[in-house]
Amino acid sequence: MPISGFPEWLPRQRMIEQYVLDKIRSTFELYGFAPLETRAVEPLETLLSKGETSKEVYLLRRLQEDPAAGGGDDQLGLHFDLTVPFARFVLENSGKLQFPFRRYQIQKVWRGERPQEGRYREFLQADIDVVDRDSLPFHYDTEMPLVIGDAFRSLPIPRATILVNNRKVCEGFYRGLGLEDPEQVLRMVDKLDKIGPEKVAALLVETAGATDAQAAACLRLAEISATDGSFVDAVRALGVDNPLLDEGLEELLRVVEAAAEHAPGLIRAELKIARGLDYYTGTVYETQLEGYERFGSICSGGRYENLASSGNERFPGVGISIGVSRMLGLLFGHDALTISRSVPTCVVVALPNEDLRGRCDRIAQSLRSRGISTEVAPTAAKFGKQIRFAERRGVPFVWFPGADGEPDTIKDIRSGEQVEADAASWAPPDADRNPLISAG
Amino acid sequence: MPISGFPEWLPRQRMIEQYVLDKIRSTFELYGFAPLETRAVEPLETLLSKGETSKEVYLLRRLQEDPAAGGGDDQLGLHFDLTVPFARFVLENSGKLQFPFRRYQIQKVWRGERPQEGRYREFLQADIDVVDRDSLPFHYDTEMPLVIGDAFRSLPIPRATILVNNRKVCEGFYRGLGLEDPEQVLRMVDKLDKIGPEKVAALLVETAGATDAQAAACLRLAEISATDGSFVDAVRALGVDNPLLDEGLEELLRVVEAAAEHAPGLIRAELKIARGLDYYTGTVYETQLEGYERFGSICSGGRYENLASSGNERFPGVGISIGVSRMLGLLFGHDALTISRSVPTCVVVALPNEDLRGRCDRIAQSLRSRGISTEVAPTAAKFGKQIRFAERRGVPFVWFPGADGEPDTIKDIRSGEQVEADAASWAPPDADRNPLISAG
Repeated sequence: MPISGFPEWLPRQRMIEQYVLDKIRSTFELYGFAPLETRAVEPLETLLSKGETSKEVYLLRRLQEDPAAGGGDDQLGLHFDLTVPFARFVLENSGKLQFPFRRYQIQKVWRGERPQEGRYREFLQADIDVVDRDSLPFHYDTEMPLVIGDAFRSLPIPRATILVNNRKVCEGFYRGLGLEDPEQVLRMVDKLDKIGPEKVAALLVETAGATDAQAAACLRLAEISATDGSFVDAVRALGVDNPLLDEGLEELLRVVEAAAEHAPGLIRAELKIARGLDYYTGTVYETQLEGYERFGSICSGGRYENLASSGNERFPGVGISIGVSRMLGLLFGHDALTISRSVPTCVVVALPNEDLRGRCDRIAQSLRSRGISTEVAPTAAKFGKQIRFAERRGVPFVWFPGADGEPDTIKDIRSGEQVEADAASWAPPDADRNPLISAG
Repeated sequence: MPISGFPEWLPRQRMIEQYVLDKIRSTFELYGFAPLETRAVEPLETLLSKGETSKEVYLLRRLQEDPAAGGGDDQLGLHFDLTVPFARFVLENSGKLQFPFRRYQIQKVWRGERPQEGRYREFLQADIDVVDRDSLPFHYDTEMPLVIGDAFRSLPIPRATILVNNRKVCEGFYRGLGLEDPEQVLRMVDKLDKIGPEKVAALLVETAGATDAQAAACLRLAEISATDGSFVDAVRALGVDNPLLDEGLEELLRVVEAAAEHAPGLIRAELKIARGLDYYTGTVYETQLEGYERFGSICSGGRYENLASSGNERFPGVGISIGVSRMLGLLFGHDALTISRSVPTCVVVALPNEDLRGRCDRIAQSLRSRGISTEVAPTAAKFGKQIRFAERRGVPFVWFPGADGEPDTIKDIRSGEQVEADAASWAPPDADRNPLISAG
């Protein structure tokens, strides 16, 4: 039986997923990110080092283990993201890595959350991060969205917009207003989309010590949204002055301007983006897919001044994570991605009779040796049945071995066109070589 | 800290692993196997349906769950192989699949076993299986080793030999000898490599009701080994007669002969191969890597007459599984695989000063747009330091933007050769485009 929150794709969907992952991976590699895969488990204490996600952890125990002996220091749990394991890996292997260290990581993660559309208990993430010792130049913050923009543009999916903000803008603005607990303000502002501005204003007054005027100013900041540098003037017009605010505005401007040059329309400065529960310290990213905005971000991240630390060593980082299962779950659910066949097979070799299997296998082998995915028919059924075998899978071509010295022929079963062919040289049109994936 | 049994590769090793997986996957796809990925968890009762592996299962519970409420029907565990989840998936989706269904599945599995060299608690397997309704033609048994042979030949690893046997040969032979419990005989013969023939003979007498002569005959059968059809005469010479034996010999001969034509030297009929604990009913496969024979099989499988069943529906299958982590763990442990660099990056663009970052980014983008992995130097350090940045990662080329209208140049930092280059057209030699992976 299906288990709620643990999605499984049919092979035709898995082929789409692999295509998506191949494109994402090759984009990451073009930017020089090296691959990393960490173990699925971490000690519980590592997982709990970020307190607030503790409720979502799956713990492990061996079936034959004495439950009474369980727990304790060496208790293991499944990782719930790829950032915590990455930080642990960097600390553990810092002597073997070259810094700045750019890595990508594409893996399943697990969270014991209540499942809902596009939210799973087991899901696939594709992360990139850059981490360095002591300090990390800011230009990496401008690079992250460009990589993601390139990856998304290589896919047959709706247009993605990366929403970007900077914690320093918010914190500097709140402090400039005279609010003493900027984190609490941020947490309340983070609820804007869920509960609306009036309730947020009330909460700011109740829980963050804001006056009505301060609360209104926070809401006006959150309303600012621009695809170019005009957000700077809009913030300035609110009349708040603070050095951290200045720093944040300058950083945010650099991210917006770099994207405007590289990929016009990719980025929007959106000053309500808070990512309240995450420990970002500067730039933050979220990503909306056109037509799927209501389902929330499908790709998020930001800058951590302290991704990992140990004693005197400190490793700042910046990263972003594509929620692959989340994105595909939404697109599959709305029939927004299609594939031309349910198997990799390009050619089915028809089998005239079982005695000719050896010859058919040699034909198949010859095609495979030139990169053409080929299957020989399972049995020497009537040719009509063998053609239906191919048809039901969307395989475009059926190969017929010639009888009595006649040449072989190949039939395009979509058009019915049948021509002579030599297994040593025939090749399909490029568009038919691999399954074709397109927007639904 | 590292956790025993949960290996993690450094990025340079992960690049080798990905190369290996890409080659395996593309071979699988050339044969028309469609990809499948199942969830990591199964209900405990599904995992226990094959009783004997129960001791190895990792169970899951949510951290916030009441332990007293745990257990029961809906208890989940991590899968310990890919066959049990595949069988469950086939039953669950039989109405949506086309049979015979050929799938490959490349995933992590988990077992709570005691770790040792090449044996892990978390490891990666790459499986292919063919499954059909009611009955599955035998020719798929001959195909499995050919696919694996092609996959291994595409890799820079020691020569692999696939050892093959057939349970019907053993069972028919034992029954023909007059032994009533062929499964018990098989389990004892399976211990040959560990405890030697004398102790196996004694165990056959003690636990399987064999006479000394019967035990000796079983051992003589187990000694038979041949790379061609001569094993048939060798078995016949033992003078045992049984219809199941005849059937098994004919099947085994077909596997050996198909491989002899397709890939001479790939297969050896090895009549001691038993795979005692697995529920195979005909052909069985194991694989040895030259020089690593003592570590056991790195790729195993066989035929199940009853891979899955439900009510009147029965799904026979045949499959084989590459132990990817096991194989790579051994090869990494013996420095038998090397890679030319620790990053995908082919070119580092040197940064003369921070003001030129935009120009350097455009050079990088131009190279990337033609598939050349490129990074811009992290800071405008002295050029010597920037060259060392590339050198330490094994990156072959450094790009120097020309000053004051001079043309750009590119330097091969291995040879020192430096030539004029245009970012719109320059390309590396094919051998340098991607990291080069070779036998160590």
